[in-house]
Amino acid sequence: MTNLDVCLSPALIQLYNVEDYIVVVIDIFRATSSICYGIENGAEAIIPVSEVEECAAYREKGFNYLLAAERNGEVVDGFDFGNSPFSYTAEKVAGKTVVLTTTNGTHALHLSRSAKEVVIGSFLNLTSLCNWLKQQNQHILLVCAGWKNNFNLEDTLFAGAVVEQLKADGYVLDDPAIAANDLYQLGKDDISQYLSKTSHGERLKKLGIEKDIAFCMQIDLTTAIPILEGEKLVKLSQ
Amino acid sequence: MTNLDVCLSPALIQLYNVEDYIVVVIDIFRATSSICYGIENGAEAIIPVSEVEECAAYREKGFNYLLAAERNGEVVDGFDFGNSPFSYTAEKVAGKTVVLTTTNGTHALHLSRSAKEVVIGSFLNLTSLCNWLKQQNQHILLVCAGWKNNFNLEDTLFAGAVVEQLKADGYVLDDPAIAANDLYQLGKDDISQYLSKTSHGERLKKLGIEKDIAFCMQIDLTTAIPILEGEKLVKLSQ
Repeated sequence: MTNLDVCLSPALIQLYNVEDYIVVVIDIFRATSSICYGIENGAEAIIPVSEVEECAAYREKGFNYLLAAERNGEVVDGFDFGNSPFSYTAEKVAGKTVVLTTTNGTHALHLSRSAKEVVIGSFLNLTSLCNWLKQQNQHILLVCAGWKNNFNLEDTLFAGAVVEQLKADGYVLDDPAIAANDLYQLGKDDISQYLSKTSHGERLKKLGIEKDIAFCMQIDLTTAIPILEGEKLVKLSQ
Repeated sequence: MTNLDVCLSPALIQLYNVEDYIVVVIDIFRATSSICYGIENGAEAIIPVSEVEECAAYREKGFNYLLAAERNGEVVDGFDFGNSPFSYTAEKVAGKTVVLTTTNGTHALHLSRSAKEVVIGSFLNLTSLCNWLKQQNQHILLVCAGWKNNFNLEDTLFAGAVVEQLKADGYVLDDPAIAANDLYQLGKDDISQYLSKTSHGERLKKLGIEKDIAFCMQIDLTTAIPILEGEKLVKLSQ
């Protein structure tokens, strides 16, 4: 019996024996969507860090890193770009290593390090990710990065989309996985509409990043699966 | 603007400023259902404690307490009864103080102590509770006791039932409140059927307490609202 569990917030991750699982980290608006798109577009690696200062420190290391840092929806002075997925095009990132500042996503990744594998999920690589997961025959834990350590709807809805593709394969679902899948059933016909009622959707609208949000809702635009190797996210070779 | 928030697990309660809220503690199977039924049936007070030893210590205090302790579905030797709501009839509890051993429920109560008020909710007193909440004009936090500090469906579904009765009154809902209400919409036509698919439902069936579960699903069987005064739950006088 293999388990398919959903951790609704990083604050709950200590309830799971992370080392027993393949972990999928989910931060739909916008970290894991941007990471999937950047890796698809040929970024050699993406390094997620928590703080702008940590990100800036990479400049001193003498390598040719691209530095992405954003606060309140604006690119921080002296940085190459922000967190918008539109910054992660092939023209900008192919062959480059990007250091990305993200709070919720980095936190979730950090707490998941001891897992068998840590991969990155978003609507962009949904089916490719699910097909790979099905082949692994391992317990799977979907870790929602959430918002400030609490539950959010967009990450949970995506977790429910993964459950939808895997559940026919005989996994045992925990209660959060059942709930996530039920919420996905409610939202799947119009995900943007469903998410527009969330508090985070309101917050993001105020930041003027509706285009980013619409981009992050696209299903199966990409096939690359970012996987954690040391501190770097790289393309999983299949 | 008043907020109606749902805390999906005691492990998330530190994300809220509990002192700003009236807190409703929810532990549907079976602690808060039994508490509502006991207070309705004239128990003078119910004292929830975490450990069987703590419960036993009340015997030494020389008062005439009824002691309720259960492990693995059986009444512990030397105790008066277990956690089944059927033990909380007027014949047994009227005029008595009951010391109740419960793990998840006590934990949630303990973490909620600093709230403006702490009251107890279950399907049994749903409408009475909601009518009282509407009159308070305060921020409301629905705290799901969950299962071993994690999310469970039954407590979340009940939180969604409270949101359903209050949402027309102009509260601002957080994402967990929206999700809880959506799950309630899915389950409300047949709550037992909906919850039968949960992991906890399976667990409880193995304990042979299906009758208890069916009892806990009854809506508006009671009107009393248990409220925390010091360490005791007593009947709120309205």
